Amino acid sequence: MQHQESGWSVGLDIGGTKTLAVLLDPSGTPSGQVRLPTERGAEAVVDTAATAAAQLLTRADLTADDLTGIGIGLPGIVDPVGGRVEHAVNLGIESGVPLAEEVSGALAARLNGRGGSRPVPVRLENDLNAAALGAAHLRGEGGGDLAFLALGTGLAAGLVLDGRLHRGVGGAAGEIGHLVYQPGGRPCPCGQRGCLEQYASGTSLRLAWPGPGDRPAPVALFEAVAAGDEAALAVQREFADAVAAAVRVLLLTADVAHVVIGGGVSELGAPLLQVVRERLDHSARESGFLASMRMAERVDLAPHGVPVGAVGAALVGRKES
Amino acid sequence: MQHQESGWSVGLDIGGTKTLAVLLDPSGTPSGQVRLPTERGAEAVVDTAATAAAQLLTRADLTADDLTGIGIGLPGIVDPVGGRVEHAVNLGIESGVPLAEEVSGALAARLNGRGGSRPVPVRLENDLNAAALGAAHLRGEGGGDLAFLALGTGLAAGLVLDGRLHRGVGGAAGEIGHLVYQPGGRPCPCGQRGCLEQYASGTSLRLAWPGPGDRPAPVALFEAVAAGDEAALAVQREFADAVAAAVRVLLLTADVAHVVIGGGVSELGAPLLQVVRERLDHSARESGFLASMRMAERVDLAPHGVPVGAVGAALVGRKES
Repeated sequence: MQHQESGWSVGLDIGGTKTLAVLLDPSGTPSGQVRLPTERGAEAVVDTAATAAAQLLTRADLTADDLTGIGIGLPGIVDPVGGRVEHAVNLGIESGVPLAEEVSGALAARLNGRGGSRPVPVRLENDLNAAALGAAHLRGEGGGDLAFLALGTGLAAGLVLDGRLHRGVGGAAGEIGHLVYQPGGRPCPCGQRGCLEQYASGTSLRLAWPGPGDRPAPVALFEAVAAGDEAALAVQREFADAVAAAVRVLLLTADVAHVVIGGGVSELGAPLLQVVRERLDHSARESGFLASMRMAERVDLAPHGVPVGAVGAALVGRKES
Repeated sequence: MQHQESGWSVGLDIGGTKTLAVLLDPSGTPSGQVRLPTERGAEAVVDTAATAAAQLLTRADLTADDLTGIGIGLPGIVDPVGGRVEHAVNLGIESGVPLAEEVSGALAARLNGRGGSRPVPVRLENDLNAAALGAAHLRGEGGGDLAFLALGTGLAAGLVLDGRLHRGVGGAAGEIGHLVYQPGGRPCPCGQRGCLEQYASGTSLRLAWPGPGDRPAPVALFEAVAAGDEAALAVQREFADAVAAAVRVLLLTADVAHVVIGGGVSELGAPLLQVVRERLDHSARESGFLASMRMAERVDLAPHGVPVGAVGAALVGRKES
C-alpha cells in the first residue's frame, strides 16, 4: 500500500446481520468504532451507513471536510468505479443501486450544518477485498502479499498481491469455494458436486454438527471435541482438512506470504488455528515439497476485536486500493 | 508491461533438449531466431547460450553495445536478482551457478573485437515466468492478466497479473501441479497422492497411452481417438478433464483474463484446445456459476512457431518484468 497524504477516513463493513464502522486517523490508526444492526433493503442500508458515519464524526468532533473519503465493503457484485452494487442477496439488494452517491447524500442531509462544503466521496469495494486490504494494513506489511480467507456462510478469499488489491479481470479472484474438492461429493447450489465450500465453510460446519442449538455450531463442535466426542473429532478433522486444502490452493497458486483466516468461524480463535496448522503439518510430513513451503507457519487468524473489513474499507475510502 | 526506451535485446529459453534464442528489435518485434541442442552441465549451458547470442548479433550486424541486455529463461530455482541458478536438474546443474555473469563473460570473449565497450547485462528468470511474459507481449496486452499453463514433463503455470510478473513470495506462484485433484489417487514423486500433475502433464499422458512408440504419445493418442478407439477416448477425456481443472484453479483463484496453454503437449494444436474447451463447457452446463465465467473462451494455445519463452526472456533482458 502506498501511504499517501491523507486526512481522516471512515470505513464501513456492511454484513448480513451487522454494520461495523471505523474511523481511521490520518496516520492510519483506528480511533473510533460503531456497530449497528443491518436492516434489509437499499434504503435501510443507506440509512444505517450514513448514521454510522455521522456518529463517528460527531464523537470525534470532526466535520465532513476533515474526511478524505468513506469506503464501504459489502458482499455482492460491486462496481468500484461506478459506485453501484447488485445481487447483494444478504442485504436484500437485487437490482443495481447507486449506493456510493446515496450514502454521500444521506450523510450530508444528516450532518446538516456540520456537513462541510462539499459532498464526501464514497467508494465501494467487495467485502473480502476490503478485509484483505485491512489485514495487510494491520500487519504493517507495506507491499505485502496476503490472502484473507473468509470462513463464513461460504468460502472465498481476498488477495493483496505485491501490495495491491488483486480483483481479477471479472472481480472473481479468490472464488476458491467453487473448486472441486471431493469429486462426486456433496451437491453445491452452484450446480457442481464436491465444491470446497461444502466442506470448509460455516454453513458446512452447521450441517455436519447441528446440535446443541443454544450456541454457535463451531463452538459446540469444538467443545464436544474437547470433551472427547469421537464423532465431533471426525467432523472437526474433515473441516480442518478442507480449510488446509483452501490454504494450499492459495499458497500454490499465488504464493502469498500469509493466509489470514477470518469470517464467522474464525471467532473460535486459537483452537481453530491449531487444528488447521496440524492438518497442514500432517500433509507436510508426507511431502518434502509441501514441507519446503512451510505452510503451517504462514497461516494466521485475523486480529481479534479489530474490524478488519471496516479498516480495509477506510483505506478504500482514502483510495489506497 | 511498461514499454520503456529500449534498444535491442536477446532472449534465451534453455530447455532440457533445446536452446531457443530470439533477437527482439527496439519495437519489441522478434527479428531473428537460433535453435541449438542443449548439452548438460553448467559449462556447456554457458557455452551454448553465448554461441546463440553471438550468432544472433553477427547475423543482424549488431555489436554488444546495441544490446540493452540478455534475458535467460530456464527451469530450476532461479535467483533473478543475484543471477544464480540451482537445482536445474534437466540441465545437469545442481549447485548454485552464477550463470548471468558467466554468460556475459563468455559472450564478450566470443565477440572479441566486436564485443563493445562494456559487458552485456544478463538477467535470469524462471522459464514459465518468462513464457507468461512472452505470451502477454505477443497478445499485445499491455497491462494484461494472463496465465501460461505449461503441459510438459510436469504441470505448472506462470502468472502475469495487472501487467506484471507475479512470482510469489518464494517463487512458487503457479505451482498448481501439486494441488490434490483425486484424493487418494496416483502417487506423486512429491510425496502426495492424486496431484493434478499426475493427470494433466505430458508425462501422465505417456504413462496412460504408451504406444505405439514411433511417435510422441500425445499424437498417438489423438490419432487413436480419431480412428474411433474407445480406450483412447477415455484416456483423452480423463486428460482433458484434468487440464480443465487446472484452468479452473487459475481462473477461480487469480481470475486472469486468459489461460494460454503451452509446453510440449500443446504442439497437438487445435484438437487439444477443442477437447479442453469441450470439458470446460461440459462443467459449465451443470453450473450457472461456472457458465457465467465463460471459461472455454478464455483458454487459448500459445502461438504456433513463435518461441514464446525466448521472447519473454528477451523482455526480461530489457528489464520488463
